[in-house]
Amino acid sequence: MVGIIMGSLSDLRIMKEAGDALEELGIAFEIEVVSAHRTPERMVEYGRSARERGLKVIIAGAGGAAHLPGMVASLTTLPVIGVPILSSNSIDGWDSVLSILQMPGGVPVATVALNGAKNAGILAAQIIGASNDEVAARLADYKESLKEKVVEMNRDLKKSI
Amino acid sequence: MVGIIMGSLSDLRIMKEAGDALEELGIAFEIEVVSAHRTPERMVEYGRSARERGLKVIIAGAGGAAHLPGMVASLTTLPVIGVPILSSNSIDGWDSVLSILQMPGGVPVATVALNGAKNAGILAAQIIGASNDEVAARLADYKESLKEKVVEMNRDLKKSI
Amino acid sequence: MVGIIMGSLSDLRIMKEAGDALEELGIAFEIEVVSAHRTPERMVEYGRSARERGLKVIIAGAGGAAHLPGMVASLTTLPVIGVPILSSNSIDGWDSVLSILQMPGGVPVATVALNGAKNAGILAAQIIGASNDEVAARLADYKESLKEKVVEMNRDLKKSI
Amino acid sequence: MVGIIMGSLSDLRIMKEAGDALEELGIAFEIEVVSAHRTPERMVEYGRSARERGLKVIIAGAGGAAHLPGMVASLTTLPVIGVPILSSNSIDGWDSVLSILQMPGGVPVATVALNGAKNAGILAAQIIGASNDEVAARLADYKESLKEKVVEMNRDLKKSI
Amino acid sequence: MVGIIMGSLSDLRIMKEAGDALEELGIAFEIEVVSAHRTPERMVEYGRSARERGLKVIIAGAGGAAHLPGMVASLTTLPVIGVPILSSNSIDGWDSVLSILQMPGGVPVATVALNGAKNAGILAAQIIGASNDEVAARLADYKESLKEKVVEMNRDLKKSI
Amino acid sequence: MVGIIMGSLSDLRIMKEAGDALEELGIAFEIEVVSAHRTPERMVEYGRSARERGLKVIIAGAGGAAHLPGMVASLTTLPVIGVPILSSNSIDGWDSVLSILQMPGGVPVATVALNGAKNAGILAAQIIGASNDEVAARLADYKESLKEKVVEMNRDLKKSI
Amino acid sequence: MVGIIMGSLSDLRIMKEAGDALEELGIAFEIEVVSAHRTPERMVEYGRSARERGLKVIIAGAGGAAHLPGMVASLTTLPVIGVPILSSNSIDGWDSVLSILQMPGGVPVATVALNGAKNAGILAAQIIGASNDEVAARLADYKESLKEKVVEMNRDLKKSI
Amino acid sequence: MVGIIMGSLSDLRIMKEAGDALEELGIAFEIEVVSAHRTPERMVEYGRSARERGLKVIIAGAGGAAHLPGMVASLTTLPVIGVPILSSNSIDGWDSVLSILQMPGGVPVATVALNGAKNAGILAAQIIGASNDEVAARLADYKESLKEKVVEMNRDLKKSI
Repeated sequence: MVGIIMGSLSDLRIMKEAGDALEELGIAFEIEVVSAHRTPERMVEYGRSARERGLKVIIAGAGGAAHLPGMVASLTTLPVIGVPILSSNSIDGWDSVLSILQMPGGVPVATVALNGAKNAGILAAQIIGASNDEVAARLADYKESLKEKVVEMNRDLKKSI
Repeated sequence: MVGIIMGSLSDLRIMKEAGDALEELGIAFEIEVVSAHRTPERMVEYGRSARERGLKVIIAGAGGAAHLPGMVASLTTLPVIGVPILSSNSIDGWDSVLSILQMPGGVPVATVALNGAKNAGILAAQIIGASNDEVAARLADYKESLKEKVVEMNRDLKKSI
Repeated sequence: MVGIIMGSLSDLRIMKEAGDALEELGIAFEIEVVSAHRTPERMVEYGRSARERGLKVIIAGAGGAAHLPGMVASLTTLPVIGVPILSSNSIDGWDSVLSILQMPGGVPVATVALNGAKNAGILAAQIIGASNDEVAARLADYKESLKEKVVEMNRDLKKSI
Repeated sequence: MVGIIMGSLSDLRIMKEAGDALEELGIAFEIEVVSAHRTPERMVEYGRSARERGLKVIIAGAGGAAHLPGMVASLTTLPVIGVPILSSNSIDGWDSVLSILQMPGGVPVATVALNGAKNAGILAAQIIGASNDEVAARLADYKESLKEKVVEMNRDLKKSI
Repeated sequence: MVGIIMGSLSDLRIMKEAGDALEELGIAFEIEVVSAHRTPERMVEYGRSARERGLKVIIAGAGGAAHLPGMVASLTTLPVIGVPILSSNSIDGWDSVLSILQMPGGVPVATVALNGAKNAGILAAQIIGASNDEVAARLADYKESLKEKVVEMNRDLKKSI
Repeated sequence: MVGIIMGSLSDLRIMKEAGDALEELGIAFEIEVVSAHRTPERMVEYGRSARERGLKVIIAGAGGAAHLPGMVASLTTLPVIGVPILSSNSIDGWDSVLSILQMPGGVPVATVALNGAKNAGILAAQIIGASNDEVAARLADYKESLKEKVVEMNRDLKKSI
Repeated sequence: MVGIIMGSLSDLRIMKEAGDALEELGIAFEIEVVSAHRTPERMVEYGRSARERGLKVIIAGAGGAAHLPGMVASLTTLPVIGVPILSSNSIDGWDSVLSILQMPGGVPVATVALNGAKNAGILAAQIIGASNDEVAARLADYKESLKEKVVEMNRDLKKSI
Repeated sequence: MVGIIMGSLSDLRIMKEAGDALEELGIAFEIEVVSAHRTPERMVEYGRSARERGLKVIIAGAGGAAHLPGMVASLTTLPVIGVPILSSNSIDGWDSVLSILQMPGGVPVATVALNGAKNAGILAAQIIGASNDEVAARLADYKESLKEKVVEMNRDLKKSI
């Protein structure tokens, strides 16, 4: 089970791609708005109970001064994947990228690209797949499908010329 | 009473300037290491109890993905002053500046310049001085002293030419 | 009483959020265009007289090479909150952010996020609330309302899935 | 078993912290120089064979136009942790950070902070610990030790005042 | 013969300008989607066989963490021209620019401007023209045509005033 | 007569190069510390009286949130040359560059390179030389000397090979 | 007489504001497309002959790798004002700003804000006005008009509340 | 024959690596200081005559507002390789990188990494090697030597553990 959390419902437009990727790879997930700055105690509770509730990985997305991924990482021994989100009034996304990436020694966040929720889902699957052969097999199939897409692209390219 | 907190003892080299400024302006303060990522529960407790313990302003300094000022701000109705600190392995200070400055609507942090702990101390005094004439008078004296320093500089400049 | 000033009427679209926040928190304010570069003497007069006219906090918004917040801070012992505004021909907002944030030692500006006028209003209320229990109580209610919004978001999220 | 690779022996000064962290957490690892640009075929072989050789996680560090983490991620279904390294002639580390972080959809790299090899080691342990209770317990102990360090810091702080 | 490759069919909108420039300068080219991250083995094969297949120059365009140009450069002794492409979710193009430009010593990529595929085509022609007088003559004509365009612009300017 | 002002005596190390250049070009100058933030009224007086005191150009240098050049420009119709200075705790000089360069419509500052005080002196001479043939002749000689330096460099280069 | 040049006719949309400002201030100007990269010899001729043709100031606007202002400055002893233009495929304007601003010692360019052609016109007038009382008087009137605009803005502000 | 030029003798410390690489690859070169801003006419002459003097490639290095590579490219149909140099008072190298890289359509510069003179030499050899089998063979040997260095590194790594 993967836990997906995000700082605001407005982040759902990006974060649902994490859920879509997990679904495609056959991995169960739950999804919730947990705000570091508006519901700090809920966040503490979420992080503290995550492992015993059966989560294996947490995916946390946030924009601006994005504290949710790092704070949750401080509250659990589970791997936490951080998704920097380009929010309105962001300074080109640098704020969320750096707030999530530049964690101090001792408390890592596995950061993915700006708005990279899809990759967060795949990374969560890879983490689970590290010790689960069935998931690993689905990931291998997924990788194969990426190759096939390029073959298709080249077919389309030839037609378009 | 002003509360000064910082994410690590290594920040003391910068943060003591906040204490020095407060001392010069005759304002009491307490100082403590509170780490958002290593002692998240202590941080929650610190923020939650700050007002009832008699604090008027909190000054929080941190480097890198600097979550301490914003998280404490989420836990109290007191004004929180954030000091971005240029730590080792920082990307030129941008990480701490943006992690502290770019707070979402609803939870402000009064951010000062990179390594600007001295100004954090003065700003705390200004906040107290907004409704305390004695502190305000000391701030006016301090402002006067800044002018005098420029007069002195010009004396030195003339000599050096 | 809080004084809101801005460099140009075109900044009103952002700066009115500071007024809205203050109104919601029951704090009186006045609002005026004061331009550092077009009306420097008016700015000096504004800063010099602010405290005796009964202001407790000044909120100053400006874009580009944003000198208004820092210059007013040099002219008063009141706390000055600076709002960097993303103006046209700005270099992604970096100019106003850095012009307001990076004040030299002795003259702090309490800087909020890019276009963060709403947070400037809340911060002004927090500054007043540091020594005013009634305002502090309203801020506590406001914080409670932030939590409730997250509860609502989760209700909406569950419906949307 | 965790595989640690790096683009050049000069990266060892940073990357050995990943090994140290793994050792402290009782996790076996192997370490090797694999250069994306000097030994591309060796890199392909490394990535392709990683899972069957029994690796669970790969940690890849590189500086400048850092292609190693992303390329290895394209060659395996294992989770790959990328460590941006500040090399000489880097543009402040931005090059390695962005070359590793901004991977396209389909091929994630779990990026940690600039020079954050220690956190890469801890993250690898967290990934293994997601389905290994013994490792998880060691991680919980490690987290406890972080807290204790802050307690010590406060003892030192009190003495130094 | 010039080889044009790109990481995704969505890059064609930019990369076709390279083809157009080559066509205008009378140089044959082939064009294909080769993805560093989705078809790494195809990329190795492409790079390894490029010279013997008769290519003289390779133009490689990619966005985000753009590894294609540098990786191909590691696989051939032909000159490789890299075109950074501004993709969606890019951080203003910095990611692709730095991923392509900042290659380590030993493996150069001839980088052109962001979205500068047209210039990549002209540069490929210049490389061929370095030892081909006919191509050089066409390039001289092209340079002449640039001058004439300015003369025309001045005619238009005079009319518009 | 050219007026050179700077925000702090610590800027003299850079700003004296402006004086040296003016001296070399035979142009009189005066030099003074005028701080926008510590002596705002002195700054107003300086700017307001500059023209009637016989100045033709003002050179103003400052670091960090550098308001001096722009504020003086708001107070005079003389051309004002701004010198961004890389001060300690600056964010790589971006703060002073952007605070000086990005002036709003109506109030220009002629900005030179970071720490470019020498060029500020030459530019002041060029401004005076625009309507003074003697100064123009000296500038032509200076330009000639630049050429000669390159001739010398090539002599040294040949020796060193 | 002021000479306005620009690298491409597409820059006219910005550069005509320089002409408008000069016209408003009663200063004659000529305008022409001169491209550093397409018509380098015309540029040399333009720069070399500028003073003898009676120009007092040159305003040069360009985008991207903007070499026109600096190159013209190398060819004349007249003051050259550089206008960085935000062109398509620019990296947020940083390229033109830095290409114009960061001139080496000996060859200054008076740089104005991104797209700041209006200010370039005003600065040219200030340069002429440094030794021309009539132009100076018009500049003083213009400054007065800026103040009046703020008065008007405050009237509008009061109505809108 | 390759022509190496640089804006100042102080760039030789970097640019000699281009010469060293060419020497290692058995390619003749000449080296000279040619300054875009101090000797613009010499630069025009250099560019105009380069091809007929027998040059095949030009390598141009410069720092700050680095106009030399782009200007020479405007004056010849030969391929021009640009080396951005991190000079003193540079803003972290961004100025030279962007001044060289972001050339307008029609006039490419083959840009290499910051201080990447060695790669400029190798790229020049690759350009010549595109139609010269002997040079290509030397490049293939060089590539082989890169691989061997990695083998050695791994030997050293094993010893050091």
